[in-house]
Amino acid sequence: MEKTGKKRKESESVMTELVLPNDTNIIGNLLGGRLLHWIDIAGALAATRHAESIVTTVIMDRVEFKYPIKVGNIVILKSYVTWTGNTSVETAVEVYAENPYTKERRFVHKGYIVFVSLNQSGVKIPVIPFIPETAEEKAEFDGGAKRKAKRIANP
Amino acid sequence: MEKTGKKRKESESVMTELVLPNDTNIIGNLLGGRLLHWIDIAGALAATRHAESIVTTVIMDRVEFKYPIKVGNIVILKSYVTWTGNTSVETAVEVYAENPYTKERRFVHKGYIVFVSLNQSGVKIPVIPFIPETAEEKAEFDGGAKRKAKRIANP
Amino acid sequence: MEKTGKKRKESESVMTELVLPNDTNIIGNLLGGRLLHWIDIAGALAATRHAESIVTTVIMDRVEFKYPIKVGNIVILKSYVTWTGNTSVETAVEVYAENPYTKERRFVHKGYIVFVSLNQSGVKIPVIPFIPETAEEKAEFDGGAKRKAKRIANP
Amino acid sequence: MEKTGKKRKESESVMTELVLPNDTNIIGNLLGGRLLHWIDIAGALAATRHAESIVTTVIMDRVEFKYPIKVGNIVILKSYVTWTGNTSVETAVEVYAENPYTKERRFVHKGYIVFVSLNQSGVKIPVIPFIPETAEEKAEFDGGAKRKAKRIANP
Amino acid sequence: MEKTGKKRKESESVMTELVLPNDTNIIGNLLGGRLLHWIDIAGALAATRHAESIVTTVIMDRVEFKYPIKVGNIVILKSYVTWTGNTSVETAVEVYAENPYTKERRFVHKGYIVFVSLNQSGVKIPVIPFIPETAEEKAEFDGGAKRKAKRIANP
Amino acid sequence: MEKTGKKRKESESVMTELVLPNDTNIIGNLLGGRLLHWIDIAGALAATRHAESIVTTVIMDRVEFKYPIKVGNIVILKSYVTWTGNTSVETAVEVYAENPYTKERRFVHKGYIVFVSLNQSGVKIPVIPFIPETAEEKAEFDGGAKRKAKRIANP
Repeated sequence: MEKTGKKRKESESVMTELVLPNDTNIIGNLLGGRLLHWIDIAGALAATRHAESIVTTVIMDRVEFKYPIKVGNIVILKSYVTWTGNTSVETAVEVYAENPYTKERRFVHKGYIVFVSLNQSGVKIPVIPFIPETAEEKAEFDGGAKRKAKRIANP
Repeated sequence: MEKTGKKRKESESVMTELVLPNDTNIIGNLLGGRLLHWIDIAGALAATRHAESIVTTVIMDRVEFKYPIKVGNIVILKSYVTWTGNTSVETAVEVYAENPYTKERRFVHKGYIVFVSLNQSGVKIPVIPFIPETAEEKAEFDGGAKRKAKRIANP
Repeated sequence: MEKTGKKRKESESVMTELVLPNDTNIIGNLLGGRLLHWIDIAGALAATRHAESIVTTVIMDRVEFKYPIKVGNIVILKSYVTWTGNTSVETAVEVYAENPYTKERRFVHKGYIVFVSLNQSGVKIPVIPFIPETAEEKAEFDGGAKRKAKRIANP
Repeated sequence: MEKTGKKRKESESVMTELVLPNDTNIIGNLLGGRLLHWIDIAGALAATRHAESIVTTVIMDRVEFKYPIKVGNIVILKSYVTWTGNTSVETAVEVYAENPYTKERRFVHKGYIVFVSLNQSGVKIPVIPFIPETAEEKAEFDGGAKRKAKRIANP
Repeated sequence: MEKTGKKRKESESVMTELVLPNDTNIIGNLLGGRLLHWIDIAGALAATRHAESIVTTVIMDRVEFKYPIKVGNIVILKSYVTWTGNTSVETAVEVYAENPYTKERRFVHKGYIVFVSLNQSGVKIPVIPFIPETAEEKAEFDGGAKRKAKRIANP
Repeated sequence: MEKTGKKRKESESVMTELVLPNDTNIIGNLLGGRLLHWIDIAGALAATRHAESIVTTVIMDRVEFKYPIKVGNIVILKSYVTWTGNTSVETAVEVYAENPYTKERRFVHKGYIVFVSLNQSGVKIPVIPFIPETAEEKAEFDGGAKRKAKRIANP
């Protein structure tokens, strides 16, 4: 019998990156574009694991970096599926920056990215539905439909 | 006499990128994260030219990729200042993808990025005001204040 | 009162990497050198978190790749501290490869890397002792002293 | 009716690059090899747009860097077609370096690169002729034949 | 008549790398992972030249970095075949670091890497036997069988 | 007693590079810009070793790629000093491409690059004179003065 849905824990992912000098600008701050690249990969990991297919980025909701991240810091990216459509998978990515010398860990950003599932020819294919389980997962799932409506209303 | 403001044409920028195999995924689509990195750099170019200082990315509004971009395509990124605050510079980045073999050029995305101006110690510093000139520039400028209000209202 | 030791869970780390075309050779196999680089970074994450200092790689024990890893696969690297000396931190790195399309996950390698703790001038500095807790951690810890002896006996 | 020729403005290109720390040597000067890579890509953009095909670099005439370019500077590369042969396209690339803090912009280099047009099998194919229009374009075009003769005379 | 074996000098290789800022950590030391990547490529060069086929890394024996290597230094990697099995090629890689300003050259590491020979489908294929000539090459060759036995005994 | 000059063999260098997929364009040809980067580094190795200082690229004479280089090939770059001025070092770089499967090795290019010697502040400093020894080295040395005159005559 084929699966009728997949749970969050079947695809959630953790990436950890050490900020090296070649990730930073002149004053040793992590480049925004580098972090955006990591966020995209983190979301793609969860979406690929859920969809069991190639995925491509369609939408990245607003990104806000609350703090600059310095060279030598450790960046942790947690990603998980929040909602699925017919061919699309919405994921959330949480970003934390840890100073390994002081052990301080700061929340930097949480945002949503939508991917579509593709076959080898690049054609959209259906995705297995996401099944939220906990209250938090259900709230995220309901939020997914609202975020979709909002994106359509404010293109 | 010091300048009291700067115009859009003093900082607008054009980047052109050739999509090479190492920018793409398994099926030859430009990686979302690679394009986000280019968008961030494009915005930073206009913001740096306006602010005449180091800048760091604070906010990237929603990004939506209307079409996949294929290996061998040419990506054109146009960036310009739309609004300034005390220490922040809002820029717009327009993304186009050109197929050099068919000459087809497609509009892929337009979005806004906010940078803050920093000194060598990483401390925020005031930016020279942006002076919109044309009707379109004035509309973008008014939009900048509205976008800021919206970002605060929907964090 | 200063800490007298740190536990494994205070520094263990997880890295997840998506194998992209530019990580592979002509037939789509992950380059050995790319994986070695990831293994080194994974070990450095745990060692940095334990030592709360800059660390530099001194020894990487034998690495054996049981299976080739293909483009499109997901590589998971788990790292944790196993032993500490005066200025050195031994870490273990476990490598798994996951095929996101078939959900198959394979154990690829487990190995040990020794780092030394350095100050900003690059001089070796003492590290806080590692305190093994579980039976498995204690076995790893005892193994650390034996591995050190073996490295000295077979330079 | 098929086109009998193409004009300069149909393929001219502008690249803008921000010099980041990982583009530079120990004293913060842009690496010569990095700039040569950008010059090659800039020429390839104009040649690809003109030829509407894959192109490969055959000749790069002498390159002379009049000034060192520093980290934090903006590099502007303007490229355009100057001459065409049966299967080859000659392009000129002009390089400027802009200090965004002082607004100083310096001319760094102008040089010529010859590409050949290739099909998917890597076989040379004819290129549509370049049609110079202005006096300057005609002078460049006449120069193209002379540069070719000179290259043959001084291999 | 087909060859019945190949000699060391038919495949030995030399790589030279200049340590640039983007190869180093915060205090200007060459990243361990970057050096491991170079060691892997150096071994692959000799193995590819010997096997005249695609090769993939299977085993890297213990690596020990006797000295930190600083930005601006020159790294020399010498690689050569030491032993062959049915489908595998063992290579040795010697690493030296040269300070170009003081002319001091230090031995950093010598280690062994085993590759297997693959066809275009990734299937293992036989390799032409290695023929040691000098006393040193014969000693390395005898050592190869011993190293193999040791790897099997201590997995 | 200080040295009054240095010989060719004191600074000649060999680089070997394996052409990986991320060095190539859509049809698997080595990117011109990638090869130009390697040529620049090869020249810088010899110039740095001769000058025992930081060097920066000033002039690269015409580069002509006689053959396309394919993915999987091995590129060999030999570099050596040919001439010195007060603060400048001229080097020659020879480029060969080797097909490891057929063992065919082709001469691709020989060209000259001029570097200047710099101190830590980026100021030009005198270089120790180059002493040609063999007839070939003396011919290259005489050629160096002629190439300089020609560069000045044809800027």
